[in-house]
Amino acid sequence: MSTTDPVAGRHPLAGFFDPRSVAVIGASTDPNKLGGKPIRYFRDAGFTGAVYPVNSRNAEIQGYPAYASVEDIPGPVDQAMIILPAAACLDALRACARKGIRFVQVLSSGFGEAGPEGRAAQDELVALAREHGIRLLGPNCLGLVSVRNRFFATFSTALEALVPLPGGLAVATQSGAFGSCTYAMAIQRGLGLSRIVATGNEADVDVAECIDYLADDPETRVICAALEGCGDGDRLRRALAHAAARAKPVILMKVGTSAVGVAAAATHTGSLAGDDAAFDAVFAEGGAWRARTIEEMLDIAQLCLTQPVPANDRATLITVSGGIGVLMADAAEAVGLDLPPVPAALADQLQAILPFAPVGNPFDTTAQVGAVHDGVVAVARTMLQAMDSATLLLYVAQMAAAPARFADTHASLLRLRAEFPDRALVLIGPSDEGLRRQLETEGFAFFTDPSRAVVAAGAAVGLVQRREQARALAAFGRAVPGEPAQAALAPVADTAQARGSSRPGSAPAGAHVLNEVQAKQLLRQAGLPVLPEHLCTDPAQAVAAAQAVGYPVVAKIVSADIAHKTEIGGVLLGLADAPAVQAAFATLQERAAAAAPGARVDGVLIAPMAGSGVETVLGVHRDPIFGPMVMFGLGGVTVELFKDVAFASAPLSPASADALIDRVRASALLRGWRGRPALDVAALRDALVRLSAFAVAHAEHLDGIDINPFLLQETGGWCLDAVVSWRAPA
Amino acid sequence: MSTTDPVAGRHPLAGFFDPRSVAVIGASTDPNKLGGKPIRYFRDAGFTGAVYPVNSRNAEIQGYPAYASVEDIPGPVDQAMIILPAAACLDALRACARKGIRFVQVLSSGFGEAGPEGRAAQDELVALAREHGIRLLGPNCLGLVSVRNRFFATFSTALEALVPLPGGLAVATQSGAFGSCTYAMAIQRGLGLSRIVATGNEADVDVAECIDYLADDPETRVICAALEGCGDGDRLRRALAHAAARAKPVILMKVGTSAVGVAAAATHTGSLAGDDAAFDAVFAEGGAWRARTIEEMLDIAQLCLTQPVPANDRATLITVSGGIGVLMADAAEAVGLDLPPVPAALADQLQAILPFAPVGNPFDTTAQVGAVHDGVVAVARTMLQAMDSATLLLYVAQMAAAPARFADTHASLLRLRAEFPDRALVLIGPSDEGLRRQLETEGFAFFTDPSRAVVAAGAAVGLVQRREQARALAAFGRAVPGEPAQAALAPVADTAQARGSSRPGSAPAGAHVLNEVQAKQLLRQAGLPVLPEHLCTDPAQAVAAAQAVGYPVVAKIVSADIAHKTEIGGVLLGLADAPAVQAAFATLQERAAAAAPGARVDGVLIAPMAGSGVETVLGVHRDPIFGPMVMFGLGGVTVELFKDVAFASAPLSPASADALIDRVRASALLRGWRGRPALDVAALRDALVRLSAFAVAHAEHLDGIDINPFLLQETGGWCLDAVVSWRAPA
Repeated sequence: MSTTDPVAGRHPLAGFFDPRSVAVIGASTDPNKLGGKPIRYFRDAGFTGAVYPVNSRNAEIQGYPAYASVEDIPGPVDQAMIILPAAACLDALRACARKGIRFVQVLSSGFGEAGPEGRAAQDELVALAREHGIRLLGPNCLGLVSVRNRFFATFSTALEALVPLPGGLAVATQSGAFGSCTYAMAIQRGLGLSRIVATGNEADVDVAECIDYLADDPETRVICAALEGCGDGDRLRRALAHAAARAKPVILMKVGTSAVGVAAAATHTGSLAGDDAAFDAVFAEGGAWRARTIEEMLDIAQLCLTQPVPANDRATLITVSGGIGVLMADAAEAVGLDLPPVPAALADQLQAILPFAPVGNPFDTTAQVGAVHDGVVAVARTMLQAMDSATLLLYVAQMAAAPARFADTHASLLRLRAEFPDRALVLIGPSDEGLRRQLETEGFAFFTDPSRAVVAAGAAVGLVQRREQARALAAFGRAVPGEPAQAALAPVADTAQARGSSRPGSAPAGAHVLNEVQAKQLLRQAGLPVLPEHLCTDPAQAVAAAQAVGYPVVAKIVSADIAHKTEIGGVLLGLADAPAVQAAFATLQERAAAAAPGARVDGVLIAPMAGSGVETVLGVHRDPIFGPMVMFGLGGVTVELFKDVAFASAPLSPASADALIDRVRASALLRGWRGRPALDVAALRDALVRLSAFAVAHAEHLDGIDINPFLLQETGGWCLDAVVSWRAPA
Repeated sequence: MSTTDPVAGRHPLAGFFDPRSVAVIGASTDPNKLGGKPIRYFRDAGFTGAVYPVNSRNAEIQGYPAYASVEDIPGPVDQAMIILPAAACLDALRACARKGIRFVQVLSSGFGEAGPEGRAAQDELVALAREHGIRLLGPNCLGLVSVRNRFFATFSTALEALVPLPGGLAVATQSGAFGSCTYAMAIQRGLGLSRIVATGNEADVDVAECIDYLADDPETRVICAALEGCGDGDRLRRALAHAAARAKPVILMKVGTSAVGVAAAATHTGSLAGDDAAFDAVFAEGGAWRARTIEEMLDIAQLCLTQPVPANDRATLITVSGGIGVLMADAAEAVGLDLPPVPAALADQLQAILPFAPVGNPFDTTAQVGAVHDGVVAVARTMLQAMDSATLLLYVAQMAAAPARFADTHASLLRLRAEFPDRALVLIGPSDEGLRRQLETEGFAFFTDPSRAVVAAGAAVGLVQRREQARALAAFGRAVPGEPAQAALAPVADTAQARGSSRPGSAPAGAHVLNEVQAKQLLRQAGLPVLPEHLCTDPAQAVAAAQAVGYPVVAKIVSADIAHKTEIGGVLLGLADAPAVQAAFATLQERAAAAAPGARVDGVLIAPMAGSGVETVLGVHRDPIFGPMVMFGLGGVTVELFKDVAFASAPLSPASADALIDRVRASALLRGWRGRPALDVAALRDALVRLSAFAVAHAEHLDGIDINPFLLQETGGWCLDAVVSWRAPA
């Protein structure tokens, strides 16, 4: 029997947050036991719906009539919380199914987190839930809190310590303790909350889906979330895109790094990826901001909650102290907030107000501003009128630490707020806590530490920029672009033999690393630029090949078993004539035999010299969560030592390829470094786009690709060496 | 007449902080005016000494008898505060001199900060003070506060908002607003203060000397300071060394970057230095810690004030949450805190206490610890007994946010504190503010944000390590080491002519950049390794030189006017025979004439090929504040793009040269990178030490040196190119 009639258009998770009734299965008469706390919280908070304790031993629990089974409850039940030993949970879920309950929280532990048996029990829960159309939160979760309707469906002790205030901040975390800490820190600074949810083992509902729900939730204006992992990368991508489309700021933390992706990686790109690089890329692509600390996450949320969305990245900075101004200006530069100079006409106006103060942005009123009636606000008004900076950073020293003395300034600030409704007004300085909170309700953001204020303001601007990029990316779509036009590339001699199981254009059946010739064959077909090369199995072939491509030539040993051919002397450059080629052929065979006695040697590759350029690295890493991710970096130490690489989800649009290139600091070397000529970045962009399309087309079978180096030249570029690794069949 | 008899052995600044009497010159009857506030503060706070308002218009001011002049005050006066218009200050100081007052604060503005006239007036004040043995604080300063004796000698509004608590933290800043902000933030978190001083224009007393005083001050246990500049680098060095010798933590901020050093730099090293790199180096060498934000400075101070000095860099991390544990473990790695693994025997003990918890460090008790009586503290005790980690990081979730429920744990923690008096015990989590403060008075450090706790704990450990290094450096001394033994280096052919005004072994009179030959001549004499090279002025000389050094050779254009000879094609490598050398000679002359028509060309340098190695960059920058600073970095993009260079004060000991090399990330390339052979780091160390000694010997005249590249090889290394720049005479 279906007791809940979901309203058409309601989000699939809405029933978790806004139920009309809840059954607590495993309810306790002791308000301090796990099964007693939610009952107490509902009662004390005044949950607006019906509460049904379920417990076979009591007729009444904490003042509510109790039932031996959910099936005994008269009328419909929207949601159940199961707080029982793990072994009893499946039966309880069966009873919920019979009662027609569609939303069930399993707070009990002893499931997926507790070894194979628990994992099996969890799978049984999930199967049963799926069969009956039940959505499952948990198991092993801390529950959820919905503030406005006083639905305190959790046994977290955080609720005993701190009463939530209603407001626009939602917190979704996998870890209950992480969520409780974030909750407590939010309450302590006076931030009002809409929804708090901890997803635990995420057998069904995960943080990503909660973000998706919160993006639609009218009570939520800002979303803070913390992930330890991610079960479904595309679900997270969709949720972030959804929140970006709704223009809701998402501030994320990701803790814990898994070595799984790294250990399994056959490619260099994979070893550089970890799983953090993929999360970083996916967060940014989704318009979200990654915070480094819980405090920083809440700082950014606080600014977004109290201030209008900044229309540009410009800020006006006013302080009563030169030193603090410089500190904040340095921080602004670091977070990408622009402090435009003061126009000449404005300078005159400012001099008229404060003749003693040096004009600039930051503007230092000097402490003498205290002698000018309403001086600080007058300066702020004048600067806001003359400059279109979306953000005002106003260091008010300890003026707000003495509320009695702040009355005039306070009144003046309120007028300023009304005059500039579309600007972010950020007050900074040590303050009285009550006054600070009042000012926040009146439309200001207020921070004590100057540096933290700037970081938060910068993140608010960054969030807007990222959301715009995310919407552009969504418009490009994640569909695979059409096959690259091969005709657009120089035709190449194709004498190389595809070997082993690599069948050009289709994925091979076996799991293995392709040799250079095979790898390049595939890349050439994907439209990437590969030099005309010849795989030769005897010296005469090699000399003929050299004559065909033209002297001087390069000779390389070809073996899928020799990954680092330069390290064994397996690459000989600048061979000028036939004798040199013949000698090289013999030398390479000898070196391969000496360095890797068992290696299967496929022959010697003869190719023309590529000429000069800058060596870059292009790669693909199949992230276990997020699928193919494209990597870009420059050759040499910038990648190895400084990890100066960037990742982006495949496929890339030309614009996202450009953004990927720009995220690598060493890319400056490509754009006319110190008087050297600019290189063909368009060719690089094109190669990245084609590589990403290839990766998507072969996502099912591809493990990873290294193109190292991709030599970028003044005109065009070349894949000079490549590794392609196919996955073992599942 | 001398009214103050300084106690023998007292610090020269002690009279500022512990006077028995103070005259306020320019005292006001209005307690809210600048001249009235200090009187009010003294009265309200109960300053233990005598207060003498000086004001010609009133016989009594705010309850104190007033005097028309300091000279009318009966009996001795230890200190005077001058709060008058700038024009009246000199007369007031004269009166102080006549009265025999030795310590004078000038709080008035309108001096050095206000243009040339103010600068002249400030110089007059200083001259008068020097003449009479008066120490001067300010002018344009906010004054000082000495908490225990209630000497509130300031007109800062911060004192109206927040009453200082007595304690061990001293705050010394140049900027009054910076000091007030730090003061207010310290009070708001319950940190007790000893002394607060703002030095303003620093005409006499500067922040460095205040640090020196505070190092001796028995009431001060931790020193926080903020600099905007530094008038005397060696004074700052001595002050930091003094504090390190006293084992007092010094936590510093430096705001504002001056472009002076950069703009004036003739060398590449100079352009990389800015002035921030020198401050960074001097802070670290002095055993001090640089904080990035005011909040971080106070976090570190708070930990140092409440906890014993950590005896090692190891930490034990216990949380009731896996996610928070990972967050903190990541932060610990970033700050260099070691989390040693749990020994097997300890693992068994921990399993006996909490059978359900996975053993490790971080140790996650899981939320189920709530069901085990005293579980968290029992785990902490067991781990502290079995592991010698100096720091315990204990995330207690929101346990301390509900004081009533915390009583048992609180009592248990107090026993733990008594049992482990030498460990740093850091509690972390959202907390009730009153309870948090109580726990801090009971010997715990308590932080809300997990990441901030780890950063502070890491800094406390880093401070100890730096102080030890600073003491070792002090033992090495800043004296110039003996002349390097030239015999230890390979003898070199010395055919190069010293030209212009560069006289080997002595500083030249003119200000200019030496050409490569001249520069190398000096470096060779300083004991640095230079290849046998010949400056040739005609092709025949060049061929003879090539035969002398042996083919293949390098030919380079020599001109002090051509700084970037490679960019004009001014270096030709691998010349194999006489015709090649002759042709090269002509080519170089042509290229120099084409690229730099007016350049003075001194000839062509013929040198042997150096062979393979890694290119490094050695440099000296004469910092205007700190004197010669030695730079080290690796060639190429690591320096240009990633600013991967480090600076250290000259002279270097072998140990400090090693430390300098280690601070460069790319140094990994020197120590056997990816199977390549390790290079001769001892030769590099030797070159840096000799370079630093040379820099000190010529400190008066040297502007800067670039040795770029210094080619480091498997055995030895060579200065392949060099620029030496001498200063213009003062």
